[in-house]
Amino acid sequence: MKVTVWNENQHEKSIPKVCELYPGGIHAYIAGFLKADDVEVRTATLDDEECGLTDEVLRDTDVLIWWGHMAHNRVPDEIVERVKSYVLSGMGLVVLHSGHHSKIFKALMGTTCNLKWRDDARERVWTVAPNHPIAAGIPESFVLEPEEMYGEPFGIPEPQETVFMGWFNGGEVFRSGCTWVRGNGKIFYFQPGHETNPSFRNEHVQRIIKNGVRWACPVNKNIPLVCPHVEPVENV
Amino acid sequence: MKVTVWNENQHEKSIPKVCELYPGGIHAYIAGFLKADDVEVRTATLDDEECGLTDEVLRDTDVLIWWGHMAHNRVPDEIVERVKSYVLSGMGLVVLHSGHHSKIFKALMGTTCNLKWRDDARERVWTVAPNHPIAAGIPESFVLEPEEMYGEPFGIPEPQETVFMGWFNGGEVFRSGCTWVRGNGKIFYFQPGHETNPSFRNEHVQRIIKNGVRWACPVNKNIPLVCPHVEPVENV
Amino acid sequence: MKVTVWNENQHEKSIPKVCELYPGGIHAYIAGFLKADDVEVRTATLDDEECGLTDEVLRDTDVLIWWGHMAHNRVPDEIVERVKSYVLSGMGLVVLHSGHHSKIFKALMGTTCNLKWRDDARERVWTVAPNHPIAAGIPESFVLEPEEMYGEPFGIPEPQETVFMGWFNGGEVFRSGCTWVRGNGKIFYFQPGHETNPSFRNEHVQRIIKNGVRWACPVNKNIPLVCPHVEPVENV
Amino acid sequence: MKVTVWNENQHEKSIPKVCELYPGGIHAYIAGFLKADDVEVRTATLDDEECGLTDEVLRDTDVLIWWGHMAHNRVPDEIVERVKSYVLSGMGLVVLHSGHHSKIFKALMGTTCNLKWRDDARERVWTVAPNHPIAAGIPESFVLEPEEMYGEPFGIPEPQETVFMGWFNGGEVFRSGCTWVRGNGKIFYFQPGHETNPSFRNEHVQRIIKNGVRWACPVNKNIPLVCPHVEPVENV
Repeated sequence: MKVTVWNENQHEKSIPKVCELYPGGIHAYIAGFLKADDVEVRTATLDDEECGLTDEVLRDTDVLIWWGHMAHNRVPDEIVERVKSYVLSGMGLVVLHSGHHSKIFKALMGTTCNLKWRDDARERVWTVAPNHPIAAGIPESFVLEPEEMYGEPFGIPEPQETVFMGWFNGGEVFRSGCTWVRGNGKIFYFQPGHETNPSFRNEHVQRIIKNGVRWACPVNKNIPLVCPHVEPVENV
Repeated sequence: MKVTVWNENQHEKSIPKVCELYPGGIHAYIAGFLKADDVEVRTATLDDEECGLTDEVLRDTDVLIWWGHMAHNRVPDEIVERVKSYVLSGMGLVVLHSGHHSKIFKALMGTTCNLKWRDDARERVWTVAPNHPIAAGIPESFVLEPEEMYGEPFGIPEPQETVFMGWFNGGEVFRSGCTWVRGNGKIFYFQPGHETNPSFRNEHVQRIIKNGVRWACPVNKNIPLVCPHVEPVENV
Repeated sequence: MKVTVWNENQHEKSIPKVCELYPGGIHAYIAGFLKADDVEVRTATLDDEECGLTDEVLRDTDVLIWWGHMAHNRVPDEIVERVKSYVLSGMGLVVLHSGHHSKIFKALMGTTCNLKWRDDARERVWTVAPNHPIAAGIPESFVLEPEEMYGEPFGIPEPQETVFMGWFNGGEVFRSGCTWVRGNGKIFYFQPGHETNPSFRNEHVQRIIKNGVRWACPVNKNIPLVCPHVEPVENV
Repeated sequence: MKVTVWNENQHEKSIPKVCELYPGGIHAYIAGFLKADDVEVRTATLDDEECGLTDEVLRDTDVLIWWGHMAHNRVPDEIVERVKSYVLSGMGLVVLHSGHHSKIFKALMGTTCNLKWRDDARERVWTVAPNHPIAAGIPESFVLEPEEMYGEPFGIPEPQETVFMGWFNGGEVFRSGCTWVRGNGKIFYFQPGHETNPSFRNEHVQRIIKNGVRWACPVNKNIPLVCPHVEPVENV
């Protein structure tokens, strides 16, 4: 299984805390714990040519992980259309945290993906679907502190499956782990992962991302997308 | 629109607090605020003949509201099958609070409807689908205290629509307002409503129940349920 | 209730059959039978200024009906974004036939909306959810001939509700009537309606479109779309 | 992976055609082609003690396949409750053809599971979700003739995923392959498989059943089903 980890990699340049927590950047850190899971990983960032998301890379990617925040707008629409096409053709997509407002996630959902937010909250993640493959090895609940609060209403289509829900000490709740299918591709959104919080260092978060990647891995990818005129197959 | 409010009416006999809060019993109280909404209401309880759920009553009911707790087991299976039949034939069903473990709700869901629970919690109900008809006139969140905590994982099938979610001060979260369709009937489950808590006196809870009843009201009811042998309609 | 009927109105200019079947164009014809249902209707077409879909018009529209085919690409992206915004803010959307490939439907679905197709088929539409409001007054099945065959696989997200399915004499099947919710808006797609076929003159098709419009009518429209930073509402 | 194939095994006793097509009975035949797929298979029938569905057998079963027709009523309610419990605890369930009216399938769906029917039809099965694991290796469509027509409306809850749809020469359509999740268990219903038709000998049908079994195989099974009182995990 081949995974591409995309991170806009902008905060890393100006907020020292991010690289203290995640040496090499969020993308490098995530790639690191994925590799330990026997997965072939490459990384790509906003500043790479074509955002590192060339046809060559995408054609060879089973699952794309996406982290973005301050630079959603700087991902060219052409690249977003290309990524969307590959998802609809089979490539899996795992969207993390502030990626809720990425062009690619919003394009696949068809909604605003809006929410309420506040930094420095205490979160308790609950496992709502304990026998879902993405919840394999995850306890009934676990704490992330500090983490950025994301609160309902979350502007998403009703999930195909709600796997995790979040409780926040300021009174909010959130559908923190949700799945959808779009075309031939599977999509998993997971809410934790603010750039200056240590959630990606949490063993359960790491396990969920690994599980999510395996879950999103397609049977086939690069399936042609066609809208053909056809002759009858029955004679009536 | 004709509504039947069913309550097992057992706690009312032994816990004075219930009738202090809800004079005449939970069923009478709910019927009271529904009548103010220009709805034709009748009540029925466990101790009535056939639990008050005769074919005559059910045939004439657009929406059935169900509250039960300590006596789920005492509702005869035959009555449950009858009620289920009417729901599948079009009658709407609004299930409140501890009704999650009623035979009728479990039969229509096909699942355990299990959850975690604890008395005397502070709950904040969040409106997750603000433009849903059941959320009409409901604020973005409101507090119920004290109310009984119901916590995930909630043993339900993925809802067709999640309308409300609950936050509890002990750290739990819950899908507090959910809809499903079963056959020709619409079902709304709403979590608040412990017998010794004042939630049914809360203006938002009352509005939600009224909205839920209107939402669940069918186009047609008493639709025959058949599995017919048929002749071809096309000649191939 | 206020409805806007949008039709690209291009075939009408070059294919005489279209205006023979639908005097004034598809939009005028549909508006005609909607008005008979006591609905306030306006029409808009591609050649109008801003496609007739100004903020003023959209703000005042409860449900937008969309028919397009040969000119999807000529609807400016800016107009599509605007319409999408109004749907997510509450405006209902009914998409007819070749509108499956409209920019607006594809944007709200997040998928290709691809299918197989062939002209001059015999179709039998089956009512799969007979007690759904959109199926009110519709028989268990009815024939449309000739109609354009649309065949699975249909590149849509799993519908929230499948209301109609189509059988075609060439051996194909299709999910011909489907609903989704996107943000605050409700969406109904209905497959029949090829420009040179008489389906819009069929009493059942007319009833379905009327029902669909009523179903898609929102509780509220023009709901602001925000992603706010918020202060805690609980003190933990 | 361990599979138990349950067949009521009644037609086999009185209709010679069944054992001509399926030597040893439908259960033995299905077990045969599953074993060729490197799966540990056992069979069980109505006439076995406890229908062959003892706690010992079910505890050791990853996926149960169910075929029944003329003897649904003779499966004791106690056994049905037991099987339901194991599904909700994680055991996968694949229901074939006339099993749509089995007590276990109806109990898990909560609906009538009614349909229209007629023998000796020509069916074309369409693959609606080509990249679904259950559709692996299945062509875009294939013919089964003769097969028993099952026609909409099909009295099921909206599927989580529609994988296959059927076209019948008499004009009917059907959602022929559908998935749901109930509790910790995954359920796949597949429509072909009339006892005197050769569909189980069809290579695509065999592949679909094999795929379905693999898809339904749980991460964990025998998960305890509890509804516990809990202490707070947060201090508010």
